[in-house]
Amino acid sequence: MKAGIVGAGSLGCIFSYIFYKSDLDFVVYEKDNETVQEIQAKGLTVSDINKEINIKIFISSNVEILSSCDLIFLLVKSYSTEEAIKSIKPYLKDNSIIISLQNGIGNFETICNFIDKDQVVYGTTTIGASKKSPSHVIAGGYGYIKIGSPSTTALNNVVSFLNKTTIELYSTENPSLAVWEKAIINAGINPIASVLNITNGEIIKIPFASSIQDSIVQEACTVAAKSGIEMDYNSMLATVKEVCQKTAKNKCSMLQDVLQKRKTEIDSINGFILKRAKKLGLAAPVNETMFNLIKSIEEKYINI
Amino acid sequence: MKAGIVGAGSLGCIFSYIFYKSDLDFVVYEKDNETVQEIQAKGLTVSDINKEINIKIFISSNVEILSSCDLIFLLVKSYSTEEAIKSIKPYLKDNSIIISLQNGIGNFETICNFIDKDQVVYGTTTIGASKKSPSHVIAGGYGYIKIGSPSTTALNNVVSFLNKTTIELYSTENPSLAVWEKAIINAGINPIASVLNITNGEIIKIPFASSIQDSIVQEACTVAAKSGIEMDYNSMLATVKEVCQKTAKNKCSMLQDVLQKRKTEIDSINGFILKRAKKLGLAAPVNETMFNLIKSIEEKYINI
Repeated sequence: MKAGIVGAGSLGCIFSYIFYKSDLDFVVYEKDNETVQEIQAKGLTVSDINKEINIKIFISSNVEILSSCDLIFLLVKSYSTEEAIKSIKPYLKDNSIIISLQNGIGNFETICNFIDKDQVVYGTTTIGASKKSPSHVIAGGYGYIKIGSPSTTALNNVVSFLNKTTIELYSTENPSLAVWEKAIINAGINPIASVLNITNGEIIKIPFASSIQDSIVQEACTVAAKSGIEMDYNSMLATVKEVCQKTAKNKCSMLQDVLQKRKTEIDSINGFILKRAKKLGLAAPVNETMFNLIKSIEEKYINI
Repeated sequence: MKAGIVGAGSLGCIFSYIFYKSDLDFVVYEKDNETVQEIQAKGLTVSDINKEINIKIFISSNVEILSSCDLIFLLVKSYSTEEAIKSIKPYLKDNSIIISLQNGIGNFETICNFIDKDQVVYGTTTIGASKKSPSHVIAGGYGYIKIGSPSTTALNNVVSFLNKTTIELYSTENPSLAVWEKAIINAGINPIASVLNITNGEIIKIPFASSIQDSIVQEACTVAAKSGIEMDYNSMLATVKEVCQKTAKNKCSMLQDVLQKRKTEIDSINGFILKRAKKLGLAAPVNETMFNLIKSIEEKYINI
């Protein structure tokens, strides 16, 4: 089986490296031509824990390269899901499988607007990475992948492919639960850290910040429960606090986006919770306030 | 009649200048000895609209100087009201009148815990000023004073004293309404401007920030109404937007406090609304979130 990676951001690049190490057959599609040219010219440099290596990968800004792929790993930011799916769809095989491991809620639903759900595998990953330059990625610890699918066949194909790599892999019958859990963790950490410009650990050290986190998670769990996702507030909150503890020194991805004046993923995190709350006739004022603050911050640098 | 000014901050200094210009008899009590010494040594420099003048005022860090005063203008920050009233009380005349023109809600109530309410006059002022150094104050436009009192006699004494100055003066039978109105204006502007580091005008230019303002004012009006203060949400919100427009280029006082890493008045503004809401069994989640954010920001610089 041949894989296509969509997006040569930090996650796309680190997956390229993982597939490369396992001798898997893959290509990378990236719409930004400058990034493509830089990686073509310089190769992809990967800073792993103890070493720095440079690898040659097949990368192109021509979407047609995906036409030979059986598995399509969608590794773009969640605000680009619809645009990415629309642009690649005409070039896919009839039976190719889309794998979404993106942050935020709603990506599976967006993909299913264009692709049959039996061709979609989705879930979460804790694999992290950051970019030093367009052609240089820094591995941020390997983590795991947790995936599921409405189609057992599709899931099995992806599992057998990923089992050839070193990634720790879990299948789940309820990938939505995993997606919601991860989104609630992000919802409870990212906007607070970003507005206050603090690390994950500082959130739980400052009682006032920690209290905002409690409210965000409480609202989100209520929305999840009303959406049919069983979520226990106390254990979810304990998980969020634990993540803050374990990643105490990290600046979360949203804060990195804000510091580099990039668009954030707030729409598919607190924004999704808020949108779903409104649809269900629920109030989510703390998520809404944090959403409005991040959108205001983005507006300060995006619309200038 | 002789006046005592408590606090040689920017408001205390600008009132000194106003009283000085009108040849009124007054002294200034300031607990910070360094400030007192600097003003004693250098005089008080006032940057007025077109001129800069230096005046000699009687200032002391010895609270006993208040014992000869009939009118005590309490011009300390609202978080210092209780401490100030406790420390000056033993040195006041039996019938001296306390005048509070401080920001925030609750100052009148705090003062009445120590002083008979018939000796208290309170309200609001739009007189603004900022400090360039401990002995140099910059006038920020003269504005007006709106005051009232449970005691007509006390009010008349203060009115006849202030009528000797150039200050535009209004008496009101409902000073609490004026205090709440000003506090709601501050509640709807200060924390948003401070968290986002933007001017008052930018709040209403950024729809997401403006939307937070709407929610703050709505919650605050509900709390005011339940506290017996008649407040129409639509006209109150219109007033807040108008203030933002008229002071578009200003950085509000709370933002100035944050930028200079000083304690803010959040406790007596959004914090008071929140506390009152809880007492009344109401929710005020947007005020609470903004309160928690400002307290988190303070904690970042105060507790280090």
